[in-house]
Amino acid sequence: IDTIHSTADMFGAKGVWGPEPTQTGVCRLALSDLDKQVKDWFIAETEKLGCTIKVDECGNIFARYPGKYDDHAPTGMGSHLDTQPTGGRYDGIYGVLSGLQVLRTLKENNITPNFPITLVDWCNEEGARFAMSLMASSVWAGVKTKEEIYALKDVYDNETTVLHELKRIGYLGETKCCHKANPLKCHFEIHIEQGPILEELEKKIGVLTGAQAYNWLNIKVTGMSQHTGTTPMEFRRDALLATAKIITGINEVAKQHKGLASIAKLSLLPDVVNVVPGEVDFVLDIRHETDEGLAHIRKDCLAVIEEASLNKAGNGTRLPYTIDDPYPYPATHFDKTLVDVIDQSAAAVVGDDLKHKMYSGAGHDSCATNLVVPTAMIFVPSRNGISHNPEEHTEPEDLELGFRVLLESILRYDAA
Amino acid sequence: IDTIHSTADMFGAKGVWGPEPTQTGVCRLALSDLDKQVKDWFIAETEKLGCTIKVDECGNIFARYPGKYDDHAPTGMGSHLDTQPTGGRYDGIYGVLSGLQVLRTLKENNITPNFPITLVDWCNEEGARFAMSLMASSVWAGVKTKEEIYALKDVYDNETTVLHELKRIGYLGETKCCHKANPLKCHFEIHIEQGPILEELEKKIGVLTGAQAYNWLNIKVTGMSQHTGTTPMEFRRDALLATAKIITGINEVAKQHKGLASIAKLSLLPDVVNVVPGEVDFVLDIRHETDEGLAHIRKDCLAVIEEASLNKAGNGTRLPYTIDDPYPYPATHFDKTLVDVIDQSAAAVVGDDLKHKMYSGAGHDSCATNLVVPTAMIFVPSRNGISHNPEEHTEPEDLELGFRVLLESILRYDAA
Ligand SMILES: NC(=O)NCCC(=O)O
Ligand SMILES: NC(=O)NCCC(=O)O
Repeated sequence: IDTIHSTADMFGAKGVWGPEPTQTGVCRLALSDLDKQVKDWFIAETEKLGCTIKVDECGNIFARYPGKYDDHAPTGMGSHLDTQPTGGRYDGIYGVLSGLQVLRTLKENNITPNFPITLVDWCNEEGARFAMSLMASSVWAGVKTKEEIYALKDVYDNETTVLHELKRIGYLGETKCCHKANPLKCHFEIHIEQGPILEELEKKIGVLTGAQAYNWLNIKVTGMSQHTGTTPMEFRRDALLATAKIITGINEVAKQHKGLASIAKLSLLPDVVNVVPGEVDFVLDIRHETDEGLAHIRKDCLAVIEEASLNKAGNGTRLPYTIDDPYPYPATHFDKTLVDVIDQSAAAVVGDDLKHKMYSGAGHDSCATNLVVPTAMIFVPSRNGISHNPEEHTEPEDLELGFRVLLESILRYDAA
Repeated sequence: IDTIHSTADMFGAKGVWGPEPTQTGVCRLALSDLDKQVKDWFIAETEKLGCTIKVDECGNIFARYPGKYDDHAPTGMGSHLDTQPTGGRYDGIYGVLSGLQVLRTLKENNITPNFPITLVDWCNEEGARFAMSLMASSVWAGVKTKEEIYALKDVYDNETTVLHELKRIGYLGETKCCHKANPLKCHFEIHIEQGPILEELEKKIGVLTGAQAYNWLNIKVTGMSQHTGTTPMEFRRDALLATAKIITGINEVAKQHKGLASIAKLSLLPDVVNVVPGEVDFVLDIRHETDEGLAHIRKDCLAVIEEASLNKAGNGTRLPYTIDDPYPYPATHFDKTLVDVIDQSAAAVVGDDLKHKMYSGAGHDSCATNLVVPTAMIFVPSRNGISHNPEEHTEPEDLELGFRVLLESILRYDAA
């Protein structure tokens, strides 16, 4: 907990929400100067514990703590140190620093595990600055190529690439970013829930069985820039009016299918008071517990977009649109054996009444690792379900309980 | 026409829409380097004709061509040389350069008018970079103060002020910006229509009797930043969803009242794919032919905003909002005598069949000058009614006809 707050203070504290010095969020965008600083710090801390470090060609850092049978593939654990621009102190960070605390605990107690243990800081999980979530863990898992991610552009300047930033901050490593060349035997991740369920049920530990399917569709609607003062409503081809109909429409679709659909990133051209918007670019984020549910939401959202493009509220001339519709992250089902290890560890730490089987609303690096190695996750409660907001908070006692479940799980797995 | 194209080429050509070199728009934002360059050029050109120059403390340039009775207040004509970011070659520019052509014609023909004639380049008519339209003409007319406009901030960086830019480009003049200290006897302005009416009616000259009332309201809706992957639709306080309902709602309101209502400038916080928008800022542009009509639109738009803020599509917790609701530009009624001068001049140039009495959809510097001196305006057709778009176009023959009506009007007024 001290390390969570001291690293927040050193590397990107932002967004004051209360009078205490720890009551701020963190803004530490992937591959920024602050991300470099926290990566440097992470390497220094793990080296102090006797870890050997590998940085791969996508900026992932693997800190390997030696085991008795040191030529075996290591037990993996990890999460991410990058944050949202309006991020809190816990999202991702809690997972990496709990892993660090596991290694510190082994070291302090002079425990040598049977197998090596590798703690990973996955690069750009958030997808906030470079709009692909689980970026570098997806390359490691083989579902994205390094060329694809190198070309991604900073959403703020639409220019700076991932490759440029990896080089600039010195994290374009030499290790191949690939689960075959640089293997883990499994992947454990602990994370804050970022949603309201554990708190509402008054549970302390979430034992995750999987995560929602989701997809991010990039959509551009083209209208016609015209003067707002001289163009009658019935003559218009207003790309923002069409987008407004899409925003309200997808909201209904999500509710119908008991899933999620959100438009939260949007830009206008030309974005001037008295010019009817000629172009709107936005991202549609859709999610569902099942792959079939996601497919239904997608289909109905596409119908909403098509309907809005007919421009019935304007001059009835169709507004062209483009959709970049990548392959979705499918619903994740975690490894039965690992889920059991976590479930037993949770029972040992908090008892049967305070643990809860659930799935994750958000995507996590574990969704990528699960594609290639046995993976499972632990959740701790988030106050009011708030995340991606400086006010994100988990009680210190709950952070402690979660850490103990992670430690227990790693030791049980190592012993099995 | 040559001057229109040569100045476009020299000072900000942008937005290619056809293969000809003249087929681009112009981007020359108020008080930018390009605006300085065109102002310098304007002064050099008018000085060549024997004009004396005054720059006032709001960046307006007055070029005074001498008359026989040179101690009289001058006949005024003017428009603006700043453009929209996606502007065309004619909006404002056509008015200033037609005025220049009037002066050139007098000079070439050795005509000394009875009274001095002052051509004005009004500063920041568009309100695109600094969001107040008719900015410096409104100060001259006494309805805005120079302190108010000095403090306006560049909408792109939310930092640079008008005062800073006036100083930087050397156009913080010494003449008082005031119709009393620096008077005109009247104000004539020629402008492209920027709408579809003249073209549809197959008329060549619009004789303007007035202009619409309008207002720009700055609105901020506050929601709650939360994770899009973990926050159920029914738990959300989505500021963009509320804004979408406002956008579709005001569209209906405008149609009901046969007026205009547009949202064309909008920004989100935090503007990230997977964070429910916590804040949306936008400008609502409302217009009507009459002041009463504008008041009705305003009232009904405020009701739409209130209704959307109830957040019924989310968790039903009200979303707070703020509205900055400045005093509207009232409906303009131009001076009867000047309208007659233009009407007679138009009859002389194009005949009774090709002129049309109408009012302006857009605001113009003449709406400001009309508050303090007799004012009237001339329109020429806009192809497809398109403006605030690089494709803005008026046929060369129509530009020529308009110029001849302006020249005729100035001479008639001078002779009367
Ligand atoms: N945990 C998290 O915020 N991941 C980012 C990807 C997502 O939006 O689910
Ligand atoms: N003519 C023109 O575009 N003026 C700017 C003010 C307005 O939007 O009407």
